Amino acid sequence: MSDQSSSTRSALPPPPTGSRPKMTSRGRTAAPPANSNLDTSDIPEYEYFVAPGPRGYPPLTEYLDIYDVDMKRHAEEKNRTSHNTHLFNLDTLVVRRGQEFEIKITFNRPYKPSEDKFAVEFVIGSSPQFSKGTYMPVFPTKERQTRWAGRVIDTFENTVTMGITPDSSCIVGKYHMYVAVVTPYGIRRTKREAARDLYILFNPWAADDEVFLNDETERQECVMNEMGIIYHGSFDDVSERTWNFGQFNFGILDACLYILDRSEMPIANRGDAVKVVRQASAMLNSRDDDGVLVGNWSGDYTYGVAPTSWTGSTDILLGYVNSQSPVCYAQCWVFAAVFNTFLRCLGIPSRVVTNYFSAHDNNGNLKTDIILDENGRVDRGRTKDSIWNYHCWNECYMARKDLPAGFGGWQVVDATPQETSDGMYRCGPASVNAIKHGQVFYPYDAPFVFAEVNSDVVFYTRGKDGTLDPVKVNHSHVGRGIFTKTPGELTRKEITEQYKFAEGSTEERTVLQKAEEFGCKREESDPLPADVDLVLPSVELAVGQDLELSVEFVNRSQQRRTMDAYVSGSVVYYTGVTSSEFLFRTPSVTLGPNKSVKELVNIEARSYMKHLVEQANLNFIVTGKVKETGQIVTAMKVVTLRNPKLAVEVSGVAKVNEDMLATVQFTNPFTFNLEGIYLRMEGPGAMLPRFRYYSLLTPNSSVVWTESFSPQRAGITKIIASLDCPALRQVYGEASLTVEP
Amino acid sequence: MSDQSSSTRSALPPPPTGSRPKMTSRGRTAAPPANSNLDTSDIPEYEYFVAPGPRGYPPLTEYLDIYDVDMKRHAEEKNRTSHNTHLFNLDTLVVRRGQEFEIKITFNRPYKPSEDKFAVEFVIGSSPQFSKGTYMPVFPTKERQTRWAGRVIDTFENTVTMGITPDSSCIVGKYHMYVAVVTPYGIRRTKREAARDLYILFNPWAADDEVFLNDETERQECVMNEMGIIYHGSFDDVSERTWNFGQFNFGILDACLYILDRSEMPIANRGDAVKVVRQASAMLNSRDDDGVLVGNWSGDYTYGVAPTSWTGSTDILLGYVNSQSPVCYAQCWVFAAVFNTFLRCLGIPSRVVTNYFSAHDNNGNLKTDIILDENGRVDRGRTKDSIWNYHCWNECYMARKDLPAGFGGWQVVDATPQETSDGMYRCGPASVNAIKHGQVFYPYDAPFVFAEVNSDVVFYTRGKDGTLDPVKVNHSHVGRGIFTKTPGELTRKEITEQYKFAEGSTEERTVLQKAEEFGCKREESDPLPADVDLVLPSVELAVGQDLELSVEFVNRSQQRRTMDAYVSGSVVYYTGVTSSEFLFRTPSVTLGPNKSVKELVNIEARSYMKHLVEQANLNFIVTGKVKETGQIVTAMKVVTLRNPKLAVEVSGVAKVNEDMLATVQFTNPFTFNLEGIYLRMEGPGAMLPRFRYYSLLTPNSSVVWTESFSPQRAGITKIIASLDCPALRQVYGEASLTVEP
Repeated sequence: MSDQSSSTRSALPPPPTGSRPKMTSRGRTAAPPANSNLDTSDIPEYEYFVAPGPRGYPPLTEYLDIYDVDMKRHAEEKNRTSHNTHLFNLDTLVVRRGQEFEIKITFNRPYKPSEDKFAVEFVIGSSPQFSKGTYMPVFPTKERQTRWAGRVIDTFENTVTMGITPDSSCIVGKYHMYVAVVTPYGIRRTKREAARDLYILFNPWAADDEVFLNDETERQECVMNEMGIIYHGSFDDVSERTWNFGQFNFGILDACLYILDRSEMPIANRGDAVKVVRQASAMLNSRDDDGVLVGNWSGDYTYGVAPTSWTGSTDILLGYVNSQSPVCYAQCWVFAAVFNTFLRCLGIPSRVVTNYFSAHDNNGNLKTDIILDENGRVDRGRTKDSIWNYHCWNECYMARKDLPAGFGGWQVVDATPQETSDGMYRCGPASVNAIKHGQVFYPYDAPFVFAEVNSDVVFYTRGKDGTLDPVKVNHSHVGRGIFTKTPGELTRKEITEQYKFAEGSTEERTVLQKAEEFGCKREESDPLPADVDLVLPSVELAVGQDLELSVEFVNRSQQRRTMDAYVSGSVVYYTGVTSSEFLFRTPSVTLGPNKSVKELVNIEARSYMKHLVEQANLNFIVTGKVKETGQIVTAMKVVTLRNPKLAVEVSGVAKVNEDMLATVQFTNPFTFNLEGIYLRMEGPGAMLPRFRYYSLLTPNSSVVWTESFSPQRAGITKIIASLDCPALRQVYGEASLTVEP
Repeated sequence: MSDQSSSTRSALPPPPTGSRPKMTSRGRTAAPPANSNLDTSDIPEYEYFVAPGPRGYPPLTEYLDIYDVDMKRHAEEKNRTSHNTHLFNLDTLVVRRGQEFEIKITFNRPYKPSEDKFAVEFVIGSSPQFSKGTYMPVFPTKERQTRWAGRVIDTFENTVTMGITPDSSCIVGKYHMYVAVVTPYGIRRTKREAARDLYILFNPWAADDEVFLNDETERQECVMNEMGIIYHGSFDDVSERTWNFGQFNFGILDACLYILDRSEMPIANRGDAVKVVRQASAMLNSRDDDGVLVGNWSGDYTYGVAPTSWTGSTDILLGYVNSQSPVCYAQCWVFAAVFNTFLRCLGIPSRVVTNYFSAHDNNGNLKTDIILDENGRVDRGRTKDSIWNYHCWNECYMARKDLPAGFGGWQVVDATPQETSDGMYRCGPASVNAIKHGQVFYPYDAPFVFAEVNSDVVFYTRGKDGTLDPVKVNHSHVGRGIFTKTPGELTRKEITEQYKFAEGSTEERTVLQKAEEFGCKREESDPLPADVDLVLPSVELAVGQDLELSVEFVNRSQQRRTMDAYVSGSVVYYTGVTSSEFLFRTPSVTLGPNKSVKELVNIEARSYMKHLVEQANLNFIVTGKVKETGQIVTAMKVVTLRNPKLAVEVSGVAKVNEDMLATVQFTNPFTFNLEGIYLRMEGPGAMLPRFRYYSLLTPNSSVVWTESFSPQRAGITKIIASLDCPALRQVYGEASLTVEP
């Protein structure tokens, strides 16, 4: 026995040198979990059941032999058109689950059903297992069937046309296919060939699929349409921009599967739409997990592409796959648009929605606090909450078999990194119907979404001792309107009533009370409204224009009212966060009984131009304290600045595979130079993303950029262009064209 | 205008050099979120309300001045004893929310309630805000009260004894305290002093607190007891070991807060027990987030401490704080034990529970698949699922205000990294009552826990064509018994009925059906049981002993039965994963009508000794196919090997602060050398963790290790010791002592 060390107080061994040891799965699981669709495990070509005889293994050659397998994989074939996968720019077969597809097998001789035994086998991921759904044999005979149905549709000479119907809840991803002939002595199989691989997707057309959507117009929009419209700006003055989701572009489907692989999501879970969308909501942002997009709201995009500059999802998804690291940069509409591409690509019906005046970072607390000092002026140092002018998220459509009946249908998912959703940067799926009815305890993250559309805005005055007294509660400001693109049209559709009952209705009050029971806390006080109203009119303003703001004070009482008002104008991000205050006035107002007075405030363009951030919004807040009553009055108005437009023109004969030209033109309308300009252009089914860089554009000079392209398919499409430079962002233009077949 | 680059196809800028840019919060939030309890923001000593006059600011000295503040923070004072925080080895005040504590303020003159205005202010984290609960003033007067109640309890000369009751849902963590005198001209405050800091914890004694537990015996056990018993071994042969949770040891409370800081959990959420335990279940393991413990089931613990070697949580938690990186290594009972320390330390009632035959990694799929070949022999290559011999998790007690009524009470949380809980390495809180009633859609992760206790074991035979046919379903194997320590006693308490209705009852069937509706899929087929039974008796076996295994075949039919049986013996990890097969026999059995036959299998110790892994279990599986009926019969038995014990003795007078001696003794009972031996020793309230290393212990030689210690408090405690070396793990010993005051 030897004793080499004396007893010590701390019992930790020295840390290992080199990299920190990782958890291993040895001893914990019999096989490492299959969590990558790129991993494969080949099945042997021969599998003997019997021991070798004196002359080795018996020859299997006397049995049926397989000469060829035709997957009928091309875009114009029935497998693709009837499965609504003909738009995928891929030579591999793409089908949807719960629906039959056909393959043609050529043998060495005619197939004899009474004698010959064969199976078509589908395999996904490493360590395929029948019980996990990662190995699935399909048989041509009625007597022997698995969860995937098989049948012989037709035989002709040596060929058999076989119909295969993957289970409507099977795993979604890329499978390998084998044909195996079963003999008494063993199994003989085809070798793996890339041409026989196939993708199986979710199927909104199949009644048994959890993503079944029983409306062809909706399906055409929410699965098949590559061209999206995203609403932004402000509630009073909705702006829109076109986005190329590009879910059918070459490489996008593989990119979507790569995202799931990168997240190490077990293959066996990938048939479950709830799990797939939840995992993806975490993976679309780079927080925690090196996901697809890096969020950046700082205005400094030196090391990447400005969020406002993207015109579609293709570059982002291919960039993520090629670099294997997160793509810079995104804000909410970019997260939502790329998430939409992911969902539509895999066959989950989805749409981008915009919520105007979205309450944020309040973690299920139904209050956004605005702090005023004792004189009624906004205390910007103490007002930490913000209401986003708008926020974009996604809705996806599914049955929610994990919840009691009544909560299927549209589900909110949100990939924009929030601070507090379950401690992680993910959100949803949360049933829209559960949100409407205040059933916020059903997973996932419903209280968070409930607060985004239902919060109260509470104005407090701060006492000298640090306590806050609520002086005004605005119940209707947040979640003012929720919009999405109308299916099959280019207009917007209001879906606010799917999230909330009418303001002031009995149902609305009941729902708010119910939600409150389960942790969504509201402001309880409800101070009396003041008898003086403040009115700020809607304003349309182009970047660089002067503005005359009219502030109307209305006395609804029978007495005289006097007040010192504070008129504050700030440049704000679309997140509602103030960048800088460019205007501060303190008019004194005297109002006779039942009288009103208008104060005019003149604002020169140069006072706000130097403060502009990328999504140029001016936020005006007027507050004041009525001297006679001590009541606080407030009014807020967001003015979205109108940017100049890009001129986009197309010329040539709009016909499939014919060459055409697209021209983008822009003239600098300002009196200052524009520097570091990126122009971007792309079009759904017509042009892949392209860009051009210009270092300088002097006042009144122009850029003209012409690109040739040839449309890939018939129908209406657009060429979408953007211009982006640090001094001027969010400049868009587009041209429509109708492509003949 | 200049044009420097031609148009290109891919539109991504070059990746930035250096480190990848991170998301910033500028432009997104007005202030970065407060998510560290270590960040502080000091409040100014003077805050003037008025502009400076010609001679500067008015002096505030004519008003009340603060000479001293006594937090009454010491362990023997009422603030500590009445709040059940006297055991914390800390000189800082520790109190529980929703319950009054007292502080004594000494002014420069007697306090005049009618004239003097002062407030006691509590601040936590950076950017303190009243509306977020991170800044809280407390007033002595009835007229001015906040959510934290304040009152003057007593005045004597210049001193005021003030009672303060923190809101019963306030943030839990470390606060700073200030006293502020409010004058018409401004505020004068005390400076921050470490002696005036205080910790506020959850309060199971306060009826309004969500963690209120209305049973003093349970509270004494689940909050106050540092000494735990963890059950392991096998269901037939339960082993137990003592663990020192050490939640009151110096540094542990700070370590628990550090864990929350490290997870960047927003301070404002830290009053919510549901969120705190969910966050902690993610942070206790190192996956995703560099949490506390690295899981390792491989048998190779070269770079850390073997999971079986730890005797308590103290070394682990302090090691994590000191190294700021994950501690190596843990298996399920270590995760559960350290999590228990965390929960008890913060005041959330909690206990470690053990589930025997726990189904794992099955992701809400209620099946564990065992694959047999056509002759009934286990196909180890294809059997990937495992049933853990046991699995430990935690239960914590809380009201679950986020769920409808009826789902409060004990909640399952589990820090052992699973593969699939919501895609992340976290689990719970899941209501035990919701699991019992199959209400698995209530958050969080209930389907996963439901499957751990309710799965079926399905034996399949694999056909030549790869398909599987279920031949036997065992509904009662999994979740056979769930145990925890009895409160206030040293015995074990079965709590299985809190998770499940009685096997075979109507309620049980209803619950399984209900759970199935919401995605917990069961095996539907129910093959007829065979008419031959296999019986394996329980066996007690010490490491190194030979074994005679008796396998009984019972024919319950009126006909003769014959079969070739497969008797397989393997060394398995406690996770049920097979390490190596050391026994394989194929007896042929012939049974007359209604007759039984016993086969005896002799196993020599040397056949299994060389294969042993750290938790030495032998797993016997007997299978066979009855020739006459084709039915498959199976039986399984786990034999837990008995390790030698450590002898632990204490000597001296067991009195608080008196020196005592503890001696650990071990003799190598084997015929081989033991190498690289760690001995560990500690005792709740008596001895901090210590260890000793021995390089070699030859056969029949002994180690004797004596340490001195002095108990810190009165009552019953233990000295717990472990011996660990690669060839022999799980050797424990302990000695009890009753310490006089």
